[in-house]
Amino acid sequence: MAYNLLKGKRGIITGALDENSIAWKVALKAKEEGASFILTNAPVALRMGKINELAETCNTEVIPADATKVEDIEALYEKSIEALGGKLDFVLHSIGMSPNVRKGRDYGNLHYDWFLKSLDISALSFHKMLQTAEKMDAINEYGSVVGLSYIAAQRTFDTYGDMAQAKAVLESIARSYGARYGASKKVRVNTISQSPTQTTAGTGIDGFDAFYEYANQMSPLGNASAEDCANYVISLFSDLTRMVTMQNLFHDGGFSASGITDGIIDKMSK
Amino acid sequence: MAYNLLKGKRGIITGALDENSIAWKVALKAKEEGASFILTNAPVALRMGKINELAETCNTEVIPADATKVEDIEALYEKSIEALGGKLDFVLHSIGMSPNVRKGRDYGNLHYDWFLKSLDISALSFHKMLQTAEKMDAINEYGSVVGLSYIAAQRTFDTYGDMAQAKAVLESIARSYGARYGASKKVRVNTISQSPTQTTAGTGIDGFDAFYEYANQMSPLGNASAEDCANYVISLFSDLTRMVTMQNLFHDGGFSASGITDGIIDKMSK
Amino acid sequence: MAYNLLKGKRGIITGALDENSIAWKVALKAKEEGASFILTNAPVALRMGKINELAETCNTEVIPADATKVEDIEALYEKSIEALGGKLDFVLHSIGMSPNVRKGRDYGNLHYDWFLKSLDISALSFHKMLQTAEKMDAINEYGSVVGLSYIAAQRTFDTYGDMAQAKAVLESIARSYGARYGASKKVRVNTISQSPTQTTAGTGIDGFDAFYEYANQMSPLGNASAEDCANYVISLFSDLTRMVTMQNLFHDGGFSASGITDGIIDKMSK
Amino acid sequence: MAYNLLKGKRGIITGALDENSIAWKVALKAKEEGASFILTNAPVALRMGKINELAETCNTEVIPADATKVEDIEALYEKSIEALGGKLDFVLHSIGMSPNVRKGRDYGNLHYDWFLKSLDISALSFHKMLQTAEKMDAINEYGSVVGLSYIAAQRTFDTYGDMAQAKAVLESIARSYGARYGASKKVRVNTISQSPTQTTAGTGIDGFDAFYEYANQMSPLGNASAEDCANYVISLFSDLTRMVTMQNLFHDGGFSASGITDGIIDKMSK
Repeated sequence: MAYNLLKGKRGIITGALDENSIAWKVALKAKEEGASFILTNAPVALRMGKINELAETCNTEVIPADATKVEDIEALYEKSIEALGGKLDFVLHSIGMSPNVRKGRDYGNLHYDWFLKSLDISALSFHKMLQTAEKMDAINEYGSVVGLSYIAAQRTFDTYGDMAQAKAVLESIARSYGARYGASKKVRVNTISQSPTQTTAGTGIDGFDAFYEYANQMSPLGNASAEDCANYVISLFSDLTRMVTMQNLFHDGGFSASGITDGIIDKMSK
Repeated sequence: MAYNLLKGKRGIITGALDENSIAWKVALKAKEEGASFILTNAPVALRMGKINELAETCNTEVIPADATKVEDIEALYEKSIEALGGKLDFVLHSIGMSPNVRKGRDYGNLHYDWFLKSLDISALSFHKMLQTAEKMDAINEYGSVVGLSYIAAQRTFDTYGDMAQAKAVLESIARSYGARYGASKKVRVNTISQSPTQTTAGTGIDGFDAFYEYANQMSPLGNASAEDCANYVISLFSDLTRMVTMQNLFHDGGFSASGITDGIIDKMSK
Repeated sequence: MAYNLLKGKRGIITGALDENSIAWKVALKAKEEGASFILTNAPVALRMGKINELAETCNTEVIPADATKVEDIEALYEKSIEALGGKLDFVLHSIGMSPNVRKGRDYGNLHYDWFLKSLDISALSFHKMLQTAEKMDAINEYGSVVGLSYIAAQRTFDTYGDMAQAKAVLESIARSYGARYGASKKVRVNTISQSPTQTTAGTGIDGFDAFYEYANQMSPLGNASAEDCANYVISLFSDLTRMVTMQNLFHDGGFSASGITDGIIDKMSK
Repeated sequence: MAYNLLKGKRGIITGALDENSIAWKVALKAKEEGASFILTNAPVALRMGKINELAETCNTEVIPADATKVEDIEALYEKSIEALGGKLDFVLHSIGMSPNVRKGRDYGNLHYDWFLKSLDISALSFHKMLQTAEKMDAINEYGSVVGLSYIAAQRTFDTYGDMAQAKAVLESIARSYGARYGASKKVRVNTISQSPTQTTAGTGIDGFDAFYEYANQMSPLGNASAEDCANYVISLFSDLTRMVTMQNLFHDGGFSASGITDGIIDKMSK
């Protein structure tokens, strides 16, 4: 069902790789809800993904941008505002990659240049998108910027490696830049801490299945799906949440507040 | 603007005293969004308030109920389901009162029967509404129950007195009952931690003005109004947030994540 | 090993039932560290326990007091100060009981008078001990008051029932009264959130064993023992921690910050 | 007063610049408590500071090491273990520097290479010290590693700039590495979140005085001093806290749990 929640709103959606991506679902929902937006991804990701299909479905275009490069972000905002016919109302940051995790480096054997790279790609890119937007005055008052995070920012999950630190930085930037951008232009900045999700990126992690099932058992409502997450993102882009800022919002079926469940006790008792 | 977000949904809204009440605004918004609902308040509050005006505007009725009495809640659910023509999809708990605060008892001189009364009225009533609903199977799957809280549950505000403990219990019940009700019937339970609000109840507190202004200065977006809060409540009643449960959600213009602001520094420097 | 950390300090230790109690271990350590103190427990608990043995070992006396009764607490402070020869430097609150849990009432079928009783016994007693102490000026500057809590205050553990709310209140009182007492008399108030512990009280809870083992597997250092906890309490009574107040301190081998561990994954994979 | 709490323990203390440094006070206390330890600082900081005086007082030596360089850390551990005659029991990480803050770059105009440098110096150095220690097996069982943090990791303080993110990473590393090192060698890792402190480093920050006074007014016990902090660090190095790990511990006179105080209300009312 569509509500016209984003009617007349313009935005940018990063990170749609394929139909399993949360960003892909966000794009479809945003379209349904009346938004117009630009899709973007890193040039290298564009080659792998099927983002052009999505652009066609959404009747929009793809503007490649490496979110670690300020000049790419500048060009992205400039072209997007021109293509959409006005300043932006929402931005989705859905960007994360750890060379250490990808190459299977143990957390006790990290490569430090890669650690910095994880932080740069997955978190500083968020700051770059915000700082560049503010400098260019690219976002309207009460615009909404959302980053996708994970509870590894608060608790340890061994296989998540240095992405735990990347998410801690991402959430911290939401607070710091949210304070600044809220005061200067009334733009709000939040992160959503999402259940483990069976995306192409997520499922690449070693031991993902046991881990996904654990989270599912531990969450009274079960794991939240990518589609559920897209709905939640829409609510944060909408005018219903104009005074919510600098928050990390758990979208996880209750996992974050769950200490133990009967399902886990059953498993433990065996 | 209305979106039809609650089209076909049925609910109960407690605590609408007058047009300054958050609950009053929620009722107006819920109506706009297509919901049908019952209004309720304690018999004593009904005499003081203007809730019948609201009922007329919303084309609904008022069913008196003392939320500390299980039998009143049972009757409320029974009559509401009958009047609305089906089980409920949402409940707003907006109930709080501390005899110690009201009678100006210092936090170092509490009357303990009144302390228990604060907890019973402001927090156990939330459990009673949840337990009774579950026993009567009064709420549909993915129904949403929301309680209104305040950051005094996490940090100390002297004049808030034993209401700090009441809100701590309220939020704790949201977690405990949310885990249970989520697992049994997929009903979600959350609290919203709202900015200080110029309601008739809020402004009764001693020193409210200095305090309101402090929060306003400390919040990058300023204090969230009762009307903003109503919008946020609607988003939590809607299907956009079906996997959010057991959370305490700050709706406060960024206050909760703000350490200091220029406005406060200016005041301090004088 | 003893360090004389509490040399010359006077205190009150509640809740020592038998040699498995955390309070029992605290008494032994406090004695070793040079403190003098009074033991106390509710008259009914005294009949069951072996606290007189402990008093003999510690060369002290037992003063019965029901911590839900202000007049008992007044008498306790008066007699303790007289017996010890001066005002107090530390108080341990180790008191908790839920009639609902004890009688096996499900969280969806709570008896509400018992719920209030759980809160009164397990949490308001903490306020009563603090308020009475402040009124009587019974605690020296930089005195330390510690309550024992559990992570159920933050996350749900089904079998813990309404004790979750009691612990939420306990921790909230530590904040509220800590703010007040810190400002008025520089007395600090904290809670320790301890691992599940094989005390006589703890092991009475249904399903305790599976639960204890889960926590043990989930804690990188394993569960903290009662003896470890006693050491930690001593550090909080000592002058080493004079500026720590209004905190809830996890003493849990890392459980609170652990998302998942290999041990749990192994169990889940079976 | 000394207690012999660290008798026979060996350690490394980083970051002692001059007699205002927290690390300087920790060294003096650790000496009093019977520990033997090595002092270290970056070669550039050594030239500015008076660390050799401290080394003389403590009857120890200074081993220069740049904590961003793994090979320096390796040499530091090797030489320290040799000089001290055995593996380590404690490490203090007190290292932080942001080129952006130092050069007065606004948070909306960050230089991104410097941002990465802030993270590398102030946070990744913590990981490097931990990873190197674990690889070399340089720390005994139940050894204690402590990093110094600040509440800017949770809440925004404009002038703190990208150090907010650095502290978020530091605290996140304490959790992630604490989980790993706890499981592998029972080594515990924590951070202390300290009041603003009038150190040579701290007072260099713009607007520090207004800010220090605000924190002081907001803390029921006032700001914790460097000396208080040293005492707290000693408690965490001692055997009294062997089961505390992966925690961020507020040492702040109650600031973190304080919502507002009378002192602030007075200032606001003017």
